[in-house]
Amino acid sequence: MVDIGIVAVGGYNEVGRNMTAIRIDKDIVIMDMGIRLDSVQIHEDVEIERMHSLDLIQMGAIPDDTIMNQIEGSVRAIVCTHGHLDHIGAVSKLAHRYKAPIIATPFTMELISQQLRSERKFRIGNTLVRLNAGETYRITDDIELEFIRVQHSIPDCVFAALHTRGGTILYANDFKFDRFPILNEPVDERRLRQLGREGVLAMIVESTRVDVNGKTPSENVAKDLVMDVITGIGDTDSGIIVTTFSSHIARILSVVEAASRSGRVPVLLGRSMDRYWEAVKKMEYIRERFPEDLLVAGDRKQIDKILKRIVSEGKEKYLPIVTGHQGEPGAILTRIGDGDTPYEMSKGDKVIFSATIIPTPMNAANRYAIETKLRMKGVRIYTDIHVSGHAAREDHWELMRMINPTHVIPSHGNLSMTGSYAELAEELGYVLGEDVHLLRNGQEIALR
Amino acid sequence: MVDIGIVAVGGYNEVGRNMTAIRIDKDIVIMDMGIRLDSVQIHEDVEIERMHSLDLIQMGAIPDDTIMNQIEGSVRAIVCTHGHLDHIGAVSKLAHRYKAPIIATPFTMELISQQLRSERKFRIGNTLVRLNAGETYRITDDIELEFIRVQHSIPDCVFAALHTRGGTILYANDFKFDRFPILNEPVDERRLRQLGREGVLAMIVESTRVDVNGKTPSENVAKDLVMDVITGIGDTDSGIIVTTFSSHIARILSVVEAASRSGRVPVLLGRSMDRYWEAVKKMEYIRERFPEDLLVAGDRKQIDKILKRIVSEGKEKYLPIVTGHQGEPGAILTRIGDGDTPYEMSKGDKVIFSATIIPTPMNAANRYAIETKLRMKGVRIYTDIHVSGHAAREDHWELMRMINPTHVIPSHGNLSMTGSYAELAEELGYVLGEDVHLLRNGQEIALR
Amino acid sequence: MVDIGIVAVGGYNEVGRNMTAIRIDKDIVIMDMGIRLDSVQIHEDVEIERMHSLDLIQMGAIPDDTIMNQIEGSVRAIVCTHGHLDHIGAVSKLAHRYKAPIIATPFTMELISQQLRSERKFRIGNTLVRLNAGETYRITDDIELEFIRVQHSIPDCVFAALHTRGGTILYANDFKFDRFPILNEPVDERRLRQLGREGVLAMIVESTRVDVNGKTPSENVAKDLVMDVITGIGDTDSGIIVTTFSSHIARILSVVEAASRSGRVPVLLGRSMDRYWEAVKKMEYIRERFPEDLLVAGDRKQIDKILKRIVSEGKEKYLPIVTGHQGEPGAILTRIGDGDTPYEMSKGDKVIFSATIIPTPMNAANRYAIETKLRMKGVRIYTDIHVSGHAAREDHWELMRMINPTHVIPSHGNLSMTGSYAELAEELGYVLGEDVHLLRNGQEIALR
Amino acid sequence: MVDIGIVAVGGYNEVGRNMTAIRIDKDIVIMDMGIRLDSVQIHEDVEIERMHSLDLIQMGAIPDDTIMNQIEGSVRAIVCTHGHLDHIGAVSKLAHRYKAPIIATPFTMELISQQLRSERKFRIGNTLVRLNAGETYRITDDIELEFIRVQHSIPDCVFAALHTRGGTILYANDFKFDRFPILNEPVDERRLRQLGREGVLAMIVESTRVDVNGKTPSENVAKDLVMDVITGIGDTDSGIIVTTFSSHIARILSVVEAASRSGRVPVLLGRSMDRYWEAVKKMEYIRERFPEDLLVAGDRKQIDKILKRIVSEGKEKYLPIVTGHQGEPGAILTRIGDGDTPYEMSKGDKVIFSATIIPTPMNAANRYAIETKLRMKGVRIYTDIHVSGHAAREDHWELMRMINPTHVIPSHGNLSMTGSYAELAEELGYVLGEDVHLLRNGQEIALR
Repeated sequence: MVDIGIVAVGGYNEVGRNMTAIRIDKDIVIMDMGIRLDSVQIHEDVEIERMHSLDLIQMGAIPDDTIMNQIEGSVRAIVCTHGHLDHIGAVSKLAHRYKAPIIATPFTMELISQQLRSERKFRIGNTLVRLNAGETYRITDDIELEFIRVQHSIPDCVFAALHTRGGTILYANDFKFDRFPILNEPVDERRLRQLGREGVLAMIVESTRVDVNGKTPSENVAKDLVMDVITGIGDTDSGIIVTTFSSHIARILSVVEAASRSGRVPVLLGRSMDRYWEAVKKMEYIRERFPEDLLVAGDRKQIDKILKRIVSEGKEKYLPIVTGHQGEPGAILTRIGDGDTPYEMSKGDKVIFSATIIPTPMNAANRYAIETKLRMKGVRIYTDIHVSGHAAREDHWELMRMINPTHVIPSHGNLSMTGSYAELAEELGYVLGEDVHLLRNGQEIALR
Repeated sequence: MVDIGIVAVGGYNEVGRNMTAIRIDKDIVIMDMGIRLDSVQIHEDVEIERMHSLDLIQMGAIPDDTIMNQIEGSVRAIVCTHGHLDHIGAVSKLAHRYKAPIIATPFTMELISQQLRSERKFRIGNTLVRLNAGETYRITDDIELEFIRVQHSIPDCVFAALHTRGGTILYANDFKFDRFPILNEPVDERRLRQLGREGVLAMIVESTRVDVNGKTPSENVAKDLVMDVITGIGDTDSGIIVTTFSSHIARILSVVEAASRSGRVPVLLGRSMDRYWEAVKKMEYIRERFPEDLLVAGDRKQIDKILKRIVSEGKEKYLPIVTGHQGEPGAILTRIGDGDTPYEMSKGDKVIFSATIIPTPMNAANRYAIETKLRMKGVRIYTDIHVSGHAAREDHWELMRMINPTHVIPSHGNLSMTGSYAELAEELGYVLGEDVHLLRNGQEIALR
Repeated sequence: MVDIGIVAVGGYNEVGRNMTAIRIDKDIVIMDMGIRLDSVQIHEDVEIERMHSLDLIQMGAIPDDTIMNQIEGSVRAIVCTHGHLDHIGAVSKLAHRYKAPIIATPFTMELISQQLRSERKFRIGNTLVRLNAGETYRITDDIELEFIRVQHSIPDCVFAALHTRGGTILYANDFKFDRFPILNEPVDERRLRQLGREGVLAMIVESTRVDVNGKTPSENVAKDLVMDVITGIGDTDSGIIVTTFSSHIARILSVVEAASRSGRVPVLLGRSMDRYWEAVKKMEYIRERFPEDLLVAGDRKQIDKILKRIVSEGKEKYLPIVTGHQGEPGAILTRIGDGDTPYEMSKGDKVIFSATIIPTPMNAANRYAIETKLRMKGVRIYTDIHVSGHAAREDHWELMRMINPTHVIPSHGNLSMTGSYAELAEELGYVLGEDVHLLRNGQEIALR
Repeated sequence: MVDIGIVAVGGYNEVGRNMTAIRIDKDIVIMDMGIRLDSVQIHEDVEIERMHSLDLIQMGAIPDDTIMNQIEGSVRAIVCTHGHLDHIGAVSKLAHRYKAPIIATPFTMELISQQLRSERKFRIGNTLVRLNAGETYRITDDIELEFIRVQHSIPDCVFAALHTRGGTILYANDFKFDRFPILNEPVDERRLRQLGREGVLAMIVESTRVDVNGKTPSENVAKDLVMDVITGIGDTDSGIIVTTFSSHIARILSVVEAASRSGRVPVLLGRSMDRYWEAVKKMEYIRERFPEDLLVAGDRKQIDKILKRIVSEGKEKYLPIVTGHQGEPGAILTRIGDGDTPYEMSKGDKVIFSATIIPTPMNAANRYAIETKLRMKGVRIYTDIHVSGHAAREDHWELMRMINPTHVIPSHGNLSMTGSYAELAEELGYVLGEDVHLLRNGQEIALR
């Protein structure tokens, strides 16, 4: 009999810093190594790149993987299923402790590589393995990894299925059922249903929005909202600025298209805009969706130069797409609001937030400050031009029905979220403590 | 000098029972005569059709037009700008007191006629005048009425412009700036801008959603949401029921199209579904958008017969579109939830609410009851598949800029809403009490 | 070794219908048998007294004790720890199935007896055993029951400690740490600390308000609020009506005292006011706190007669304390609001709600209706003159520190509440699934 | 005929920066000159003491009194009705522009003097006149000022009545009807009723909490809450820290008493604690309520020394009462939370917030940060041990009935608050625009 254990390392008591270890006898596969940024945010003057992992663990910013010492076995692979920081942000702090390859899809791997290059404290020597959605990789003789295409809010997301002699474990964290996506293919439902028929021993699944009614709308609806607002502004000679997630390439693509349709030149501005664009440039199939001559700038001088040009040629000719949707100090929108750039806001100019406020009081305060400053200049503000990238209640219900796993382990959430997932599972006949399990950071469950 | 007065009769202290009188010297034009249904709802056993207007006035259900006695002048016309009950619902109770024609667009007039036919207490003999959007009608030698196409959440909505020797008064209650509508043409912005250039003395404008950030998305976004949910349900052999506003013909059209696309026969069920369908049948340009053989039933026996057939042929072949989105007692969805029809809900069946809860505690309680009962049967619920029909903050900002009226009079809202409108107007340079005016039911303002 | 099991029968998935079975080898002790009224409320025309238990179980209104068949052993006692309906309301429907005495404090037993007398469907023959706080009762040779005085929002509440050869189990559902109570002694903290030192195997504890910050204030604060409002109303010649929980005798006492202090004659009106007063009359130590000649009426005719007298003698001379704080149909306040009694409300009369809205949409709607009707008559309304009877977060933290139980089993709450309790326990070093346990209705846990 | 005008200078579009000018023919009396701190808070590195008034006006931080140039007449007096910064905080920036005495109660005047001493930009030479509650002062031959005792959340608050040939104007901003106050006498209701009988032309009244149901409880209830929490903490050997408003002397007195009762030595720590204590020391009748040997420290070194001593002697022997209830950067609680003082928090220590979060997102974020840091150290937190100092809806209803002014002018609030006040006034028969007036900053109304 194979002995399989699931170890909740991070992301089971909170949203953020995801990390799960799956143990098959003495072989361990780690899923994700994320960071939790709001733990950092309440402290000032923290420079993550230079910090030691133990300090970050103590702050609750990265998973406490010291518990791995108590797990008998060797780590054979580190798998990252998409490129958001709460899934890859601790790789540069933790991966060097394990003699194991890092496996990810090409886009995700680009982002991991960037991070490893900017790390100042540790030197990471792990092998990097690029694996496409739909492909498989043999981790050991007995463990095969399969990547299955899903949709979320960053390109190239996958579920990771571990096929073992003891059964298949599906790691499903994060996703949405987008049937009309803007980038990449829709979720590979055919394969998921097939997996379900073949039998899945355990599914580890995100639970961030399980309390939200219904299904999460397609990113296509977000595109419509973006088009509706940008092309619908009657007041065509005012300045318009859009701010959104730098990693949300599909969204940025929609904004770029809306810009073109309304006769404005789109420009991507901000350090992280530039960083993600570097990754996009490596992905031909994404790159080709954007205009050849798209202007992107990440360095402060260059940005100010472009903003100067925009002002002199006429704001109504451009559509800057900038960082700062959470009012982050130092982001472009914040600097513009503070009057620290050549782009002076005037009465009637528009700022469009294609993002929601990530619900922490620090973000609320930052957003309030930037919105107040903009309003004092007479700027018109459009908020929440956005659709989530996370599955809602009925999406989860559908996924559970498709996969029909023997065990369900909700992850990526606090107890209130994973508890809600358990209640949903109960509606499908699962029983808490028997086949749906509430793990807490630091706990291991043995699957019978 | 012409002496112009605006009399706030109803809808200035509340949402609902809209009625405004515009006095040009001794000639009076009444805009809208609506009912406020939540005033009725807290009382049991009220049968409106048989009630006298004074009792309804005392309950706060219809405008208190007794104040009209103190206005010197004669009513020359009663104008209804769209067919919702909060704009036409008191016509059958109040119009007979005035010797004046009722003027409305064709679809609106159909609904008024229906209402007059079902009135049991009063006999209404006023002349009925159908006027199309884009057309004008001479009320007196000195007063010309013009209808301007707008969009809202019922077909055939208009703004009413009264051209007088003293200037133009624009009645703009209700609307949204929908640039990609499903039915009818978009808002006639060209004419609105022209009006603005010609000069508008006063604009009376709704204020229900002026506190909502940004712009109200197009009904096209609602269509996407409907499509996304209905065609995106993986579980194709379960029953699906949609409930929405019977008067929201554009929405119903989207649901009907989604039904067809997912291979289900759409069926409209419910007394008010049938009533609005009667009006639709008279409008060829709307009727032709629907399938020739669309099934519609309003009478209880017939509905139960159809539901029986659906069950016997297979729920997965049909898409009932039913009344009851607010959980109203007696509506089809409520009856289904109570197990009072041949359509038995089973585990995994879906109910889609293409509507929000109209925010009164009574509705919240009714919705809670129906949702709880459905969930107890294992039904999966999708809520808020909806986009509003009312302008949001930035839409109002754009309208004010287009029209640039000398005076602004926010209407259709409580003081908190009309007050918010005044604050918005202040951002455009208006001054409270000078050129933006907060009226209360029963007050008249003289325009200088 | 003794084999001890805790069976979650009801109240582990919801607030209401509490029932826990504690099994010591083959001997079973049942703690509480409650009803959940909001499950009944969404259905109309339900007459509980005549309903069969299986129907009530199916509606989710009473605990599903059919699972008891699968528990090996015999029920030796049914213990009720206080007299609220969510703890005793199912006794008349379920107790007859067990050949075991019902044990409760004197006040609680009065209420149980009333209920058994009004039951129409079943005949209950169980022996009734009155046990005072501070006393013990030998259930079997090996099981001793001890009642420990606590405070809540009804007189004569206790924790039940079961002393067995396998250790002590403490049933702590519901309570608050009131150090300045109005009725009875404060919580017997001395005994609780002693218990903690002796060792407690398991504590079963309520979790309704564990999410509320800090500590729940003393009922003494509620008394101050009541005094402040009633004696502070400057307008001394208007009518004042207070509505509060009929079972909250301490609160009623404070209102009665405030009435006297402001020179008004207190009168208790309403069916359930009368019913609880019947129980009070049997408790000499409570009875003597009230005026000798207190007027109480439960029967409709009598109530109307008293209200008539009040109106004729002058409203300012009386203080009616009535049922209807949730706007319940048929309650006295509701009837007064509907104008169905001789007590006509006039402009400037006051209604004081010494209660919060129990948070279900049905209550919100009922309260909205009654408040709206009262406001339409010009009545001034004072709400939330109230302090909760349930422990808050820090009270629970203190209790856990006092008792220091080996195992903690949060009860009386949905998973979100019991989950929050578990998180609190984690702050004290407990580990989910090891020594703090989330049970769901129908589950048994074996204690190691 | 006397010509009376009321000029809304500040506090009519917002909470904060109160300033109203009352013009009697050519004589002007200014009521309050306040600052609005949240306008400053969104900017970093602002040092108010060194800023020019025009810059502060531009930021919206102090009233825009440049409009006074357009008012014909001379300022004869500047009256401050209590010592909160939103009523006196702009005196040092604006008073020097007027050749007029500053009139205030003794405690208020102490605070004004402190402020004038710390001003770095302007030199203020106005005469300072101390006037007690119950006394009058002749401003001109025709204008007499009367101070009437009220209660709020700082000592020595008054209403200001201006008796003029044209009638009496009552300035009632801020107050609560506290019938059981901790400091000073209750509101002088006898005099208010008398004023009402004599006739009041206009009442200018605060509206911050007019939307809150019922009446604001007495400060006595806050004292009970403080006692309940502090003396009720079972865990007597842990550290306890209380944080509250430095200016709320009555509250501090209650905390000091609770400290004594629980055998702990109270210590007041923080710059503003020290500053207000300086003012208290000048008021014998307040000073004598506190222990002779009360320890107070405002200077950093001294504070750290005291904290060191507390730690070495035993935290359980002291009760530090500190600044930082809003999590303000630099305040003592914030420094303790950051580990920047000798007072190390340990597991089980308590922090009691005897304050609510003043509702701006910046405060919410600061409070979140400090609470999170404290919780990470295992500190137990008690929040909202507080009762407001502002009148609620029914208090306002009572005041209006007492005074029965010909005109009502709600102030100190945004339009949503002053609008709510107007709706309340309507319930008493006032008519918007006729005898209840909504002014906006910069507007003058002439009283007929």
